[in-house]
Amino acid sequence: MEINYPNGKIYTPKKNNSENRSKKDYSYSNRGKTLEDEINETNDYYMQKGTAVIHKKPVPIQVVKVEYPSRSAAVIKEAYYRTASTTDFNGVWKGLHVDFEAKETKNKTSFPLKNIHAHQIDHMRLVTEQKGITFLIVRFSLINRYFILPFKPLQDAWNVMCNGGKKSIPFDFFEQHAFEIVPGAYPPIDYLQGVTRMLSE
Amino acid sequence: MEINYPNGKIYTPKKNNSENRSKKDYSYSNRGKTLEDEINETNDYYMQKGTAVIHKKPVPIQVVKVEYPSRSAAVIKEAYYRTASTTDFNGVWKGLHVDFEAKETKNKTSFPLKNIHAHQIDHMRLVTEQKGITFLIVRFSLINRYFILPFKPLQDAWNVMCNGGKKSIPFDFFEQHAFEIVPGAYPPIDYLQGVTRMLSE
Repeated sequence: MEINYPNGKIYTPKKNNSENRSKKDYSYSNRGKTLEDEINETNDYYMQKGTAVIHKKPVPIQVVKVEYPSRSAAVIKEAYYRTASTTDFNGVWKGLHVDFEAKETKNKTSFPLKNIHAHQIDHMRLVTEQKGITFLIVRFSLINRYFILPFKPLQDAWNVMCNGGKKSIPFDFFEQHAFEIVPGAYPPIDYLQGVTRMLSE
Repeated sequence: MEINYPNGKIYTPKKNNSENRSKKDYSYSNRGKTLEDEINETNDYYMQKGTAVIHKKPVPIQVVKVEYPSRSAAVIKEAYYRTASTTDFNGVWKGLHVDFEAKETKNKTSFPLKNIHAHQIDHMRLVTEQKGITFLIVRFSLINRYFILPFKPLQDAWNVMCNGGKKSIPFDFFEQHAFEIVPGAYPPIDYLQGVTRMLSE
């Protein structure tokens, strides 16, 4: 069986059924796409339009064993996923360093903070100190709503949790402190528009 | 075994034998370390000092087969190295987006341009258009000299090659157009000092 993977993506048939999706059931809800897909497509759009140069970082993998078959590419035969020490996305936009993490949740009423790691909060703090722009994009997948949560309120919620408080961020906290992004066809999720609003406040 | 290292001579052991290296034969030539090691250590130093937040991006790997042994971490059983579409290092430094590639050569008289890929030049051009700071760090390993080559002269040399000209950048081109960095103990290679000089010109 011959399968091509043009985007370097892993074929995960059980989840993403975008190939079987007929045109007519397509809406701006970007059904079947992961948030990561949506952001990657948006970043492609930004790059084509000359808006920004933002990429997802590769997943960090610890390679243990590699074989070198003759006349073929090296094959990794044993490797493990490592925990990322930074955020997933970064790049440059009109002279600004942009650095963010993106998470989706099936929860409708709150965003569980277990989706974020302590070292990511540390990283975002350091980036803020260097005058980079950092934030969290959250997709509430079941209600199809997207928010840009600036680092400051994210850090506040994180500190509450670290002091024994709530382990999740309630939905209305997003309505108060975050900037909503309305999904579109192309780009799927024009987050820099939300960041523009965030920076103007 | 005790070895003396005359001027500029580099000790290149088969692997990194830093554990066996006694204190007295240590010099600023960072013997046995790769340029990547030196830059990673320098980035750690910058992070500790609050100077900048710059990281190496993980190597992009195409995962094909993963196994999930019970009670253990996922094991990648088949994967391939992919070509990076951007530069290796990026981050933020006092509000500036910094984005660069680092290469070492054993050549003493020129830097072969085959070390750089066309898509990296494209990426650097796009970053420049977004007002990011981008450059190439080159280590001439056998003579222990380090240079920061700004994107503009790199692009010029690249274009010469694309038009049928020289396939390498002569050493004296670096002396004319690049900013030399003197290696140290810690940080091993204080490249932001070179970038500061580059930006002030």
